[in-house]
Amino acid sequence: MPHISTKGREMPPSPIRKLVPYAEAAKQKGLKIYHLNIGQPDIQTPEVMLNAIRNYSDKIVEYSHSAGIESYRKKLTEYYNRYSIQVDFSEIIITTGGSEAIEIAMMSCLDPGDEIIIPEPFYANYNGFCTQANVKIVPIQSSIETGFALPPISEFEKLIGLKTKAIMICNPSNPTGYLYSKSELESLAALVKKHDLWLFSDEVYREFCYDAKPYTSVMHLKGIENNVVMLDSISKRYSACGARIGAFVSHNKEVMNTALKFAQARLSPPTFGQIAAEAGIDTPESYFNEVKEEYVSRRDYLVSALNSMEGVFCPKPSGAFYCIARLPIDNSDAFCQWLLEEFSFENQTVMLAPATGFYSHPGLGLDEVRIAYVLNLNDLKNAMTCLKHALDAYPNKRMHKAELSGSGKA
Amino acid sequence: MPHISTKGREMPPSPIRKLVPYAEAAKQKGLKIYHLNIGQPDIQTPEVMLNAIRNYSDKIVEYSHSAGIESYRKKLTEYYNRYSIQVDFSEIIITTGGSEAIEIAMMSCLDPGDEIIIPEPFYANYNGFCTQANVKIVPIQSSIETGFALPPISEFEKLIGLKTKAIMICNPSNPTGYLYSKSELESLAALVKKHDLWLFSDEVYREFCYDAKPYTSVMHLKGIENNVVMLDSISKRYSACGARIGAFVSHNKEVMNTALKFAQARLSPPTFGQIAAEAGIDTPESYFNEVKEEYVSRRDYLVSALNSMEGVFCPKPSGAFYCIARLPIDNSDAFCQWLLEEFSFENQTVMLAPATGFYSHPGLGLDEVRIAYVLNLNDLKNAMTCLKHALDAYPNKRMHKAELSGSGKA
Repeated sequence: MPHISTKGREMPPSPIRKLVPYAEAAKQKGLKIYHLNIGQPDIQTPEVMLNAIRNYSDKIVEYSHSAGIESYRKKLTEYYNRYSIQVDFSEIIITTGGSEAIEIAMMSCLDPGDEIIIPEPFYANYNGFCTQANVKIVPIQSSIETGFALPPISEFEKLIGLKTKAIMICNPSNPTGYLYSKSELESLAALVKKHDLWLFSDEVYREFCYDAKPYTSVMHLKGIENNVVMLDSISKRYSACGARIGAFVSHNKEVMNTALKFAQARLSPPTFGQIAAEAGIDTPESYFNEVKEEYVSRRDYLVSALNSMEGVFCPKPSGAFYCIARLPIDNSDAFCQWLLEEFSFENQTVMLAPATGFYSHPGLGLDEVRIAYVLNLNDLKNAMTCLKHALDAYPNKRMHKAELSGSGKA
Repeated sequence: MPHISTKGREMPPSPIRKLVPYAEAAKQKGLKIYHLNIGQPDIQTPEVMLNAIRNYSDKIVEYSHSAGIESYRKKLTEYYNRYSIQVDFSEIIITTGGSEAIEIAMMSCLDPGDEIIIPEPFYANYNGFCTQANVKIVPIQSSIETGFALPPISEFEKLIGLKTKAIMICNPSNPTGYLYSKSELESLAALVKKHDLWLFSDEVYREFCYDAKPYTSVMHLKGIENNVVMLDSISKRYSACGARIGAFVSHNKEVMNTALKFAQARLSPPTFGQIAAEAGIDTPESYFNEVKEEYVSRRDYLVSALNSMEGVFCPKPSGAFYCIARLPIDNSDAFCQWLLEEFSFENQTVMLAPATGFYSHPGLGLDEVRIAYVLNLNDLKNAMTCLKHALDAYPNKRMHKAELSGSGKA
């Protein structure tokens, strides 16, 4: 039997999906599971997008341009303009989800053995994309005590070496919900300029910024226009994860020409998804206002409920629809599995994502979980009731030092 | 300004799309262009697929399973059964086009520096996928004189070394239209077994086999079940190139588990395309009969028209909708550009794909072009009239030795 590649063996399985068999077994036992483990929102896709699909009238489902349908790319520049991002349509390549935008960025800018610095915890699938490209992630730790703010620039400096080619951020962040401030991003820009690095920024949650805090894009930063690649997706914006439409955006002509070669190899992004996405740009403002209001009330309830549980700490995030909570547990993988395998409260349980999957340093995230507030308030309340009972019942509890001394909840 | 990766610089631009700017300029001058350069069929997508899209009734466009919608995968096993390919749905991962199936095969089975043997001329984008994976293509030359039959196994043997990990074929072939016989495939199977290599087979044109010649899949071959990966796509089958739905198929459980990790990293294939594809399995047999009849009449006309031109030789292919023709020209890149830039007949011209892009050995394909018979008979006739006049007018003609001596048209 021929051998699987080293790359294939090293490719990490999805840490978010690895608990699925336990969830399936729990469902077979008749348990109701509250899924707070994945970023699949329960919000409806805008009607304008669904109507565009229902009104599809072409007779042949043709390839689009490799860079995406031109009318969609042109309209997308209007969308970006609303966020004060000034781009020409030639500075946009439509990708198959944000995932492909990341893959193309890795391949266009980094070679096997190159290093990329990423603040951890980070979106777990970055591990996979870097393994695919034989790129090494150098993690820099952000901390729950600061709500996962950008680590000090001096800490980045310590990690920059000859092989460092890029820094990658996610803003607002999956999995932490942290929204980087303008000054944090400006300090990062100075560092990027000093060392002439690539700056990749995954900004797929820009619609979800709360508490009147401003969204700053890497596309707003002055003096590093040629260093910046913005990675985007409509998946969360319009609750259209299955459309698989993203974007690779840069002012750097050389990187656009390079990315186009990768885009040409795979021919074109999905035609149906692009049609829905183009229609989506006309989604009324009221849609987003309602969605944001909904997420804010969920977040407010969730963070307050979590912090009222003994030994639990959850900083209040200002963006996206995730939070990371520290729990009084020994091992988040074991705990999340136990929730599905051994626990139930009134025939219900809750599925969470162990935070270990979002850290690159081994041993980090053992007492943390990521919670996606993608369920309605009523379900969230039931889920938190389950979690409270679960923490009471869990046999391998361990209080965090900060909790024992009463600090850490500031 | 940060550096583009070596990989990005080495990534080949699409040889098929590189003439596009000249075509655009010709259109601006008011010329009508017959596009025989790309595999975008003019055949209509089956109504059952378009109706499935028009009847889309979900409220949220959700991620599907990373391996694809289960009901689609199950129904796809019925489709394969019609071709005597026995697979379980767990042996299928739905991909974003055939392109992604190839990318996943490369990454799952080959490491940077590994070698893959591919008979040339081959589908030009294989170059891109191998560059992405840092895999080296070792071409083995097939010849226009044999109609591009499988090269002798002894020639393969000469190329197999320590780094050889795989052989890849396309059957029926893009760009040659050649349909491998059962005995050719059995001899390849023996070689694959002897050296324990991977055998990747791109079989996206299986619907297009002519002259009552049988289609043999690598999935039919005995004794190499664990070596075989079949790469598939609905793009050509249903004239649904823009749906971006393909498949990665293998009996090898280890390679399926590995491929699933790559599939999980990019979350899921396009939902709309999968819905159309699932409906497509109910496309009536009459659709394919009509399409095949249409392609056969186009091929018969085209091959006969080409061979009647002075100094032209075109073997008659038994599959797909391409042929490779040898023309009395110095340089196919220059000739195809000249057709767009300098030539016209009654305000019309023809766009062809230079065969150089389908060869890996430099210097091969200089007197060959690939012609896709994706236009109706009337347009094809006009296109051939243009080509005949163009060959008369082309200033850099060069007769092939075989033509001069009268052979080569057997």
